[in-house]
Amino acid sequence: MASKIRIGIVGYGNLGRGVQASIAQNEDMELVAVFTRRDPSQMPAEAGVKFEHVSTVEQYKGSIDVMILCGGSATDLPEQTPAIAALFNTVDSFDTHAKIPEFFASVDAAAKNGQTVSVISTGWDPGLFSMNRLLAESILPQGKEYTFWGKGVSQGHSDAIRRVPGVKAGVQYTVPVESVIEQIRSGETPELATREKHERICYVVAEEGADRAEIEKTIVEMPNYFADYDTTVHFITEEELKSEHSGMPHGGFVIRSGVTGQGTKQIVEFSLKLESNPEFTASVLTAYARAAVRLAKEGAVGAKTVFDIPLGYLSAKSDAELRQQLL
Amino acid sequence: MASKIRIGIVGYGNLGRGVQASIAQNEDMELVAVFTRRDPSQMPAEAGVKFEHVSTVEQYKGSIDVMILCGGSATDLPEQTPAIAALFNTVDSFDTHAKIPEFFASVDAAAKNGQTVSVISTGWDPGLFSMNRLLAESILPQGKEYTFWGKGVSQGHSDAIRRVPGVKAGVQYTVPVESVIEQIRSGETPELATREKHERICYVVAEEGADRAEIEKTIVEMPNYFADYDTTVHFITEEELKSEHSGMPHGGFVIRSGVTGQGTKQIVEFSLKLESNPEFTASVLTAYARAAVRLAKEGAVGAKTVFDIPLGYLSAKSDAELRQQLL
Repeated sequence: MASKIRIGIVGYGNLGRGVQASIAQNEDMELVAVFTRRDPSQMPAEAGVKFEHVSTVEQYKGSIDVMILCGGSATDLPEQTPAIAALFNTVDSFDTHAKIPEFFASVDAAAKNGQTVSVISTGWDPGLFSMNRLLAESILPQGKEYTFWGKGVSQGHSDAIRRVPGVKAGVQYTVPVESVIEQIRSGETPELATREKHERICYVVAEEGADRAEIEKTIVEMPNYFADYDTTVHFITEEELKSEHSGMPHGGFVIRSGVTGQGTKQIVEFSLKLESNPEFTASVLTAYARAAVRLAKEGAVGAKTVFDIPLGYLSAKSDAELRQQLL
Repeated sequence: MASKIRIGIVGYGNLGRGVQASIAQNEDMELVAVFTRRDPSQMPAEAGVKFEHVSTVEQYKGSIDVMILCGGSATDLPEQTPAIAALFNTVDSFDTHAKIPEFFASVDAAAKNGQTVSVISTGWDPGLFSMNRLLAESILPQGKEYTFWGKGVSQGHSDAIRRVPGVKAGVQYTVPVESVIEQIRSGETPELATREKHERICYVVAEEGADRAEIEKTIVEMPNYFADYDTTVHFITEEELKSEHSGMPHGGFVIRSGVTGQGTKQIVEFSLKLESNPEFTASVLTAYARAAVRLAKEGAVGAKTVFDIPLGYLSAKSDAELRQQLL
């Protein structure tokens, strides 16, 4: 067996811990160290991993094959990815769709300069959902594509709930409207705004003595966040919030309804049902870390996306094994 | 705009006609000629295409960028693909899973010799389903994968019905068992034989005076084909067979139920619902024809599969457009 792929993780939140767990599932990989902005000596010893301060990354040049960047898209990755791509092959999950072209350009320049491969914007959206949008559009150029998200927690909307006076805690789920999905699966191609495809369900813990009717009204009528949606508010106890709503489930659907020949209907659908969004995203990152290393070994340099990488590069199996077992 | 991709079709059955229709949907492509083993002068003039005898292909070297091979896997493609790959870039839908390694080797040698690119075994299974098996397995190495086929017509089983004494005509649909799919979608990972995942539904036109009970018994108890399955036989009229069962619908599901972290369940599903199997398969072939030409332009040679080709190569859009619009 070839030597293992040596991996570093930058950032140790939910995503970083998910990558650590994912590496443990892949026999061809080993975790060398986790890099953090916090004091490494204060990190949990029971994590079973070597912690290093992020300022020391350069010392690992030559002993880490790929860095998996687990920071956030708002402020961490726009700085971190170019900086680390100058030294190491990297993979990240940059997910601000509108800023991808600009992010790509900045990372591409840094990676070309450093002679590294930097796979950006993996995960599931952007990532697997993007791949399915591209695949289905290329096969069925005459057609209509629908992306649904959920059932899953929306962090921004949960924060908005928690800012409402009288609310102690709360969580918001974005839920695809099942009847609309069925309509599309049956071959109809309605024009739909995002708000017509999704409903919003809120679980709220009210402060003692708070006016629940007023809280509900404030949430349901909140512009931008809830007013345009079919929104439901459920009041629950703090215990219920902890026991039933502390997971991070997510998922969704990409459906393309296309037409071939003389009006023949063809429907392609991809869906995810995830008990943990960060653990799944982490598993996608880990598979693309394998691809980044293979690309680098072949001499590739620069920024890459999921559109640029053959699927076979994600697997630990050889091309011949893949043809025999999975084709 | 760049010059159009010049395409030849070899074989003019359902699949070849599907490719013709698919090319018409893609503005960056043009159909140069259809090559047939039949007498070109006897081919339908209303098809709106130039027919040539297959023996003349060599004359088109330099004026066709890629040949889409629409013959059958049993006898046509094992001969045709290597022969034509020696002269042209090709795409085919070779689908005898067990013989893929041997087919790959033979085509790879011919294509390397001819300095061409030959994309083999595209379509949806092998093809899109294979890609999803690989993708989901790479992301969720701890898990279980299920492939279901249908609802769709099985040619072999329809033929078997028609050989039963007293049967005038008939068609057999393979249908996934919905309750099993729901079981898997809910996170269970049962061990299932193919016969437990699918049922068989037969529509039979009996000859006048034939013993229907005897026909039904013969079908339901037929070894290999039906005995191990939950099989239902419906007797219908010849008119009903024509009006309701002359389409070629198909489809199916690839579901991987995996586990990350400490027993977190993650489910990835890809599904197709096709009104016409050959038209959809043709559309996949056409998209891969675009990829074959791009690979050849980059200097690639030899046999390739869907595992070897970046998804971006399937699209007429530029890499920058794809990142902006679909990532």
